[in-house]
Amino acid sequence: MSSDFGKNLKVSIFGQSHSAAIGAVIDGLPAGYAVDEEALQAFVDRRRAKDVLSTARREADKVNIVSGLFEGKTCGAPLALFLENNDVRSSDYDELRVRPRPSHADYTSYVKYGARDHRGGGHFSGRLTAALCAAGGIALQILEQFGISVGAHVLRIGKVTDLPFDPVKVGKADFCYPTDFPALSAEAAEKMKAEILTAKSECDSVGGIVECAATGVPAGLGEPMFGGVENALAANLFGIPAVRGVEFGNGFAAATLRGSENNDAFYYDGDTVKTVTNNAGGVNGGISNGMPVLFRVAFKPTASIFRPQETVDLEKKENVSLLIRGRHDPCIAVRAVPVTEGVAGLTILDLLLGAGKDTLNRRGD
Amino acid sequence: MSSDFGKNLKVSIFGQSHSAAIGAVIDGLPAGYAVDEEALQAFVDRRRAKDVLSTARREADKVNIVSGLFEGKTCGAPLALFLENNDVRSSDYDELRVRPRPSHADYTSYVKYGARDHRGGGHFSGRLTAALCAAGGIALQILEQFGISVGAHVLRIGKVTDLPFDPVKVGKADFCYPTDFPALSAEAAEKMKAEILTAKSECDSVGGIVECAATGVPAGLGEPMFGGVENALAANLFGIPAVRGVEFGNGFAAATLRGSENNDAFYYDGDTVKTVTNNAGGVNGGISNGMPVLFRVAFKPTASIFRPQETVDLEKKENVSLLIRGRHDPCIAVRAVPVTEGVAGLTILDLLLGAGKDTLNRRGD
Amino acid sequence: MSSDFGKNLKVSIFGQSHSAAIGAVIDGLPAGYAVDEEALQAFVDRRRAKDVLSTARREADKVNIVSGLFEGKTCGAPLALFLENNDVRSSDYDELRVRPRPSHADYTSYVKYGARDHRGGGHFSGRLTAALCAAGGIALQILEQFGISVGAHVLRIGKVTDLPFDPVKVGKADFCYPTDFPALSAEAAEKMKAEILTAKSECDSVGGIVECAATGVPAGLGEPMFGGVENALAANLFGIPAVRGVEFGNGFAAATLRGSENNDAFYYDGDTVKTVTNNAGGVNGGISNGMPVLFRVAFKPTASIFRPQETVDLEKKENVSLLIRGRHDPCIAVRAVPVTEGVAGLTILDLLLGAGKDTLNRRGD
Amino acid sequence: MSSDFGKNLKVSIFGQSHSAAIGAVIDGLPAGYAVDEEALQAFVDRRRAKDVLSTARREADKVNIVSGLFEGKTCGAPLALFLENNDVRSSDYDELRVRPRPSHADYTSYVKYGARDHRGGGHFSGRLTAALCAAGGIALQILEQFGISVGAHVLRIGKVTDLPFDPVKVGKADFCYPTDFPALSAEAAEKMKAEILTAKSECDSVGGIVECAATGVPAGLGEPMFGGVENALAANLFGIPAVRGVEFGNGFAAATLRGSENNDAFYYDGDTVKTVTNNAGGVNGGISNGMPVLFRVAFKPTASIFRPQETVDLEKKENVSLLIRGRHDPCIAVRAVPVTEGVAGLTILDLLLGAGKDTLNRRGD
Repeated sequence: MSSDFGKNLKVSIFGQSHSAAIGAVIDGLPAGYAVDEEALQAFVDRRRAKDVLSTARREADKVNIVSGLFEGKTCGAPLALFLENNDVRSSDYDELRVRPRPSHADYTSYVKYGARDHRGGGHFSGRLTAALCAAGGIALQILEQFGISVGAHVLRIGKVTDLPFDPVKVGKADFCYPTDFPALSAEAAEKMKAEILTAKSECDSVGGIVECAATGVPAGLGEPMFGGVENALAANLFGIPAVRGVEFGNGFAAATLRGSENNDAFYYDGDTVKTVTNNAGGVNGGISNGMPVLFRVAFKPTASIFRPQETVDLEKKENVSLLIRGRHDPCIAVRAVPVTEGVAGLTILDLLLGAGKDTLNRRGD
Repeated sequence: MSSDFGKNLKVSIFGQSHSAAIGAVIDGLPAGYAVDEEALQAFVDRRRAKDVLSTARREADKVNIVSGLFEGKTCGAPLALFLENNDVRSSDYDELRVRPRPSHADYTSYVKYGARDHRGGGHFSGRLTAALCAAGGIALQILEQFGISVGAHVLRIGKVTDLPFDPVKVGKADFCYPTDFPALSAEAAEKMKAEILTAKSECDSVGGIVECAATGVPAGLGEPMFGGVENALAANLFGIPAVRGVEFGNGFAAATLRGSENNDAFYYDGDTVKTVTNNAGGVNGGISNGMPVLFRVAFKPTASIFRPQETVDLEKKENVSLLIRGRHDPCIAVRAVPVTEGVAGLTILDLLLGAGKDTLNRRGD
Repeated sequence: MSSDFGKNLKVSIFGQSHSAAIGAVIDGLPAGYAVDEEALQAFVDRRRAKDVLSTARREADKVNIVSGLFEGKTCGAPLALFLENNDVRSSDYDELRVRPRPSHADYTSYVKYGARDHRGGGHFSGRLTAALCAAGGIALQILEQFGISVGAHVLRIGKVTDLPFDPVKVGKADFCYPTDFPALSAEAAEKMKAEILTAKSECDSVGGIVECAATGVPAGLGEPMFGGVENALAANLFGIPAVRGVEFGNGFAAATLRGSENNDAFYYDGDTVKTVTNNAGGVNGGISNGMPVLFRVAFKPTASIFRPQETVDLEKKENVSLLIRGRHDPCIAVRAVPVTEGVAGLTILDLLLGAGKDTLNRRGD
Repeated sequence: MSSDFGKNLKVSIFGQSHSAAIGAVIDGLPAGYAVDEEALQAFVDRRRAKDVLSTARREADKVNIVSGLFEGKTCGAPLALFLENNDVRSSDYDELRVRPRPSHADYTSYVKYGARDHRGGGHFSGRLTAALCAAGGIALQILEQFGISVGAHVLRIGKVTDLPFDPVKVGKADFCYPTDFPALSAEAAEKMKAEILTAKSECDSVGGIVECAATGVPAGLGEPMFGGVENALAANLFGIPAVRGVEFGNGFAAATLRGSENNDAFYYDGDTVKTVTNNAGGVNGGISNGMPVLFRVAFKPTASIFRPQETVDLEKKENVSLLIRGRHDPCIAVRAVPVTEGVAGLTILDLLLGAGKDTLNRRGD
């Protein structure tokens, strides 16, 4: 498969929904940075299924770090971590071995791998995002030591929208929520919960949009064309199951605007060059410009819904009706919030490490 | 910089807006596939500036292939091509050396590279897409020999929208235009031209959305998590200057839907598994499912507009007003249509070559 | 660090000499191939320290596979495995934190990482080769299912030489040893043991050469220039600590030969093209030609010897004398034999997977 | 094919022996470094065929740089260069289309690519090293601006040996030759010439060893395991056609030594840590230690010799005798000297750029 990413910071994700464990190896971490394991656990717990809004499968999600740390700090060696799988009910998936769920990877994994692990979606399960989240949490802790903060919230669930980040003023203070739901507005949070519970009560699911910002990102990260900030973030964010779109700054809305409306004027704020607006989402020509990096990620509604659906039997080669068993989230966008932050953190740390070499690029100044 | 991409098919783009030439090297092309140089030139000509809708800079854009072909076919060796730059007016850019255009890469390239070639935006220029388009044209010709076709059109310019592709029925026949403008509807084409000319007459620019489809893509291309069809396409598409968002299938609209609305039911059409709808845009779990691959790309309005704008002088370290000279497109989305097709072609051919190894993956069936 | 390799088959190695565990993740394994865990353990046991010829540190080296298998076969998902570290004596290394052992990585890791884990050499320890060996063992089992066998032996220890493989006739039957020592000749084995024990008794160490062959490798693996069989094998083999040289076929001896002596004449053996001699070691122009792939790897004597040596104190910035404690092998070439096989196996499987795409390359025939 | 290499500095080589041109694209060059085109031409001319010791094919080898420079310096954009092929006699190769030369890539390229360009060996030709040499020359010029010098000489031709570099004292002054032949000893040079001319007069060829040193390399380049200095150099050096072995420092000779003989004691020379001997060739644990980086490369005798040889006819499927036409070098090791320097230069610059990020690695000190 291809469950690895990164250039300077290389992440490899392993595990299946029902394997003994899932986990990650992070190669390329800079040495000498503190890792707070308690804070890491708290971060991973933000993703953990724990209430009526999430799946009934309950995993402790205890993060075990087995290498890469020395006296509480990164030591430059690859950091490996794993989380056990305990609450598995594999028999729920027997039928799905040859009867693929609509809009899930059951069919394409059958075509491609044949002998894949179908239980719980195998390696295609959202369960894998626990490992991704844990890896991301480490990157985020290191970024904080560089003065870079990353935060996200649910901007939309179905028809309900949250307040957006202010593209220019967004800061670390915005990266917390007034309630136990990851929305900036307490009112929106209540409406979003209701939207999810309604879908759940109707044996259905609902989609959402996550908005994410990174502040403190220095100007100069990323490279032109295929090594830009957007390329790297988009490539990695599409690695989170259920992502259907990624946009930066004004994003798709920029298509409807004039240049005079969309351009961000430069000005000096003391010695620092800033932009008056931030329609670009902090990136010009693939390279960060020092303003907040801002993007949005669209998540589709969970494919696994508890209604009869039409599908095929791949052995009998006939059309059949399917009623899914198993335990599934009615809205994955909610638990995807820390995962999005984590992937953003890993990507930005990778870019930051890559930018180290640019100190050599300035001889000609 | 990082002007290369691809895993099995590796593309390296070179050149600056005002260098002697621009071009590309494609390493990894399969051997024995016919390349029609005349048809390639016709494809590249679709991108060429030629009327009032595009920049006044007029380049012949003659594609010269210097290696990689033997007796009219690919021979497995890297294919190198270049296009000369002739119609350059470098003095138009003298002021921009230290006075960056808002929302262009002038500022970030100054921060990162210092001694960069500022003329015409240097390596950050849309001019580079001519080389990308030529490379893409070769990939598209090879894909046709595998029965895969790629086509795109302008879905939106400012407030005007074209007819969308039918996600299920879209086919090769849809990949042509009733007029000289790349829209499916002649009526939309006229309105879009007017939208662009109005922006131009007001010394402004306007954004747009390009919709692209690939048909004939076999089920099984791409890999889970970070090696999926969406990851690869998104990473590469963001390499086209001015792209602000990429979405697949229902894309951002999926965020507002229920699972029961968004899921694509499977059925047997003879021996072939198909889906009734194609909200997924032909991809499940990162792997193509045999339905048309469908995506949309948002282009921002051209940053270079002929109105006074606020910016900074990086030498004098003061705020200044800037009136851009040079020659620029009032709407880059139009000329981006074949470029989008080309990048899609290169990406899909890369995935197809990578899928070759999956023939080894089926022992367990 | 950079403890990962591979293109189609990607291996990531983690752990330090004294961390909780060491291990590996292998991403890209083809699905549906049997893995015999008992045989794997037996293979890893070949490398395990167990007699007077090896270090006094005794680890059980039990291989735990936590993902990537399903019903006894690979399932396409990344395979993660780990081995615990139990027999550690970290205090032996306190002095080495700032007093680097000559010809070990203690000094360079201090320069590069500062806060590295110095205990037992940290991530630079030969201990890591246990994980590499285990990963390699899986590759070797899969290669056997493709009819490819890999075997190695100690060709030289100090002044003692073993019989070499017959470059043309070497076959699977040669991949076993008459004694418990990995040499083809029982007589050489005895002399080599004596050579090692003499060095050990003199508080010294001794170097060696490992010769390795892969049979059943189909013609057509590898690519010209930088993607060839030699490039890949050499790059990966230098990842085994203490390797100082790699040569293929006649290797350095070819430098003293005439073309008429070194060239391998082609002939038809039935329908199969073979070569009369195999001075090329089975590779022409980077691509396997169907003959046995044959190479040799030079290992230096263990750097950690129990004699007083001159070094520096990096804190006090002064020259000092050092007497190493800890437990070390008097000759690493012996235990490196299965590691060499394993690295060769991983590399050849990677090349084999990459060659899958070449089925697409033959249209022009 | 796979004619690209590098991680931070990415090189892509294109062309065939008889294509219109050959060349290279170098992506990732740092910006602001002077490139002297005249000196570059002089460097490439060192490789050019010009006397009785080399092939009768005479190419001007004029290097044309078409992008990547601005006002005489690198500008960060990819640098593309090409050299025309003019003196081609393709008909010499008609027979070789289906009758492969022994020990050349004719057979393996036929197996792998089918419709490959057989003329002059196509992309497998030593001709391609002209492009590699030119690319390398640029890297070497930039390295000089960092105080790093690279030099090589012919250490052996057949039975004749040159004086070796002093592993500790080797410096820039050693990187020149007393005669027009790339040997350190004038006497050896004469004997080597004679050795080559004798082989030539007997319609034969002869092999050789090139020794190469890089001085001024700072401690800290490279990474452990698979990203080390040796891994990168070996992988890239095997990309030069005809290379059969690569060894560092003592190399294969280390296999016969004791640790007490092979270890390099550290000492302070003022504030600088140095080693008394340099058996390691300047690398410990994959990372440069500040001493000269020293390695040797074995070149086999040219495969194309003008004697009758046994081979097969791939169409008629029968054994045949072959008498090669065309023009070939009697000893490629001689012209390989600047190519080896160039590949070393590109590799070391790549490592140097990668090490830039390590400035971030020292927080824990």
